[in-house]
Amino acid sequence: MVQQPVSEHEMEIRVRYCETDSMGFLHHANYIIYFEMGRTELLRSAGVSYREFEEDGLFMVVVRLETRYHQPARYDDVLRLRTTVKRVSAAKIEHEYHLYRDDLLLAKGDSMLACVDRNGQVQRVPQWLRTE
Amino acid sequence: MVQQPVSEHEMEIRVRYCETDSMGFLHHANYIIYFEMGRTELLRSAGVSYREFEEDGLFMVVVRLETRYHQPARYDDVLRLRTTVKRVSAAKIEHEYHLYRDDLLLAKGDSMLACVDRNGQVQRVPQWLRTE
Amino acid sequence: MVQQPVSEHEMEIRVRYCETDSMGFLHHANYIIYFEMGRTELLRSAGVSYREFEEDGLFMVVVRLETRYHQPARYDDVLRLRTTVKRVSAAKIEHEYHLYRDDLLLAKGDSMLACVDRNGQVQRVPQWLRTE
Amino acid sequence: MVQQPVSEHEMEIRVRYCETDSMGFLHHANYIIYFEMGRTELLRSAGVSYREFEEDGLFMVVVRLETRYHQPARYDDVLRLRTTVKRVSAAKIEHEYHLYRDDLLLAKGDSMLACVDRNGQVQRVPQWLRTE
Repeated sequence: MVQQPVSEHEMEIRVRYCETDSMGFLHHANYIIYFEMGRTELLRSAGVSYREFEEDGLFMVVVRLETRYHQPARYDDVLRLRTTVKRVSAAKIEHEYHLYRDDLLLAKGDSMLACVDRNGQVQRVPQWLRTE
Repeated sequence: MVQQPVSEHEMEIRVRYCETDSMGFLHHANYIIYFEMGRTELLRSAGVSYREFEEDGLFMVVVRLETRYHQPARYDDVLRLRTTVKRVSAAKIEHEYHLYRDDLLLAKGDSMLACVDRNGQVQRVPQWLRTE
Repeated sequence: MVQQPVSEHEMEIRVRYCETDSMGFLHHANYIIYFEMGRTELLRSAGVSYREFEEDGLFMVVVRLETRYHQPARYDDVLRLRTTVKRVSAAKIEHEYHLYRDDLLLAKGDSMLACVDRNGQVQRVPQWLRTE
Repeated sequence: MVQQPVSEHEMEIRVRYCETDSMGFLHHANYIIYFEMGRTELLRSAGVSYREFEEDGLFMVVVRLETRYHQPARYDDVLRLRTTVKRVSAAKIEHEYHLYRDDLLLAKGDSMLACVDRNGQVQRVPQWLRTE
């Protein structure tokens, strides 16, 4: 059985000057930061503030993240990031990311997150977030 | 047939204050930056300056990168990064990364890089870098 | 004679998670990055793309920058940055920055930039940018 | 009366690839990060861990910072940062920074810090840090 996406969000991100490197392209570590922005905004579009989530003592930590880089981006490019929740179980949350400039796919990522408390102890993912 | 590592390098990295986030830990995007430092220093230990490599018109670009995060790091921690070349073919270079604090494995990464020229055209990996 | 501002621009910036530090606040180096975004958008609002400016072989480099930090910002805060051109002469461009959350002034900056060519040689500021 | 420096520290910093920008130089925001590293190491050389300082509930926050940029730095440059305490009173700490490549001064900075507690309330600078 293939798990259906439960939620999806698209946002635009303009590449900042400081995010480029001397090769002239968006540095590959910054894609990770864009993916994190995608998760924040996807949650917000579902009516949840991740900031309040943390203020309640729960933290989502990345346990695995993979990125495939297809095409470079440049300073001032306006990119489009699509963030998709692939699966949410009691133990983990899986996302997928597609980063485009116009219709060109620049990069694809996927990640697995877990919930922990202030002491780093793993917690069950809140029921309202789960898809199974 | 399992490809043997052809080269390995260890270095220490101290976590900077700005690299932490409001969770109190080293932000997960910064591991990617540490891995890149590991590649630079591994090359240097083999007598090659990546800066001169670029000045000669060749660039190594990351095409795939995966990180598994096991334990968090904190500000001012002194970490030990072991970078290993797993395989170098005419088309790609594969590295593995292990990040430790003392004997505790904090994260493990692996990446695939390609060589491109100034115009982003894929080039053959220089013969002297290859292991097969 | 007091030089009048020739141009002004306001933009919103949402604080990213990775921009905070373990103190829980927006790290002070990131204000510098926001100011740079302000300059890019101020130029754009005047019909100029800084990216094209560079593609024409001219670069604006920061020669002096001062920031006064009044109040901290937190993750997910939506800030308002007002960027003002204070003075443009043949040799330099001076900007001022005010960063607010609602009506609270968080920080105030001012900078001086020069124009250089690809070789780092100082160039005259283009006539169309000048105010004196 | 000119206040004498009470403490001074020198360290080497190698410019990371991700710290450069598409102009090919060390991005100007990263100097601020280097200055912070200088403060951490200056404290450590005086037998004080800033991390423990924070664990005791005291935080040093930057209230003013100015940088003058003289010459650019490039990827892989090994820079030398000299951090000097200029003055420590009950209310504030003033530092000066000189960043060199060999004998060439690349940048000069100065900053003013204050002590705050976990709630951001200004605290007196600890007696053992003061010079007046």
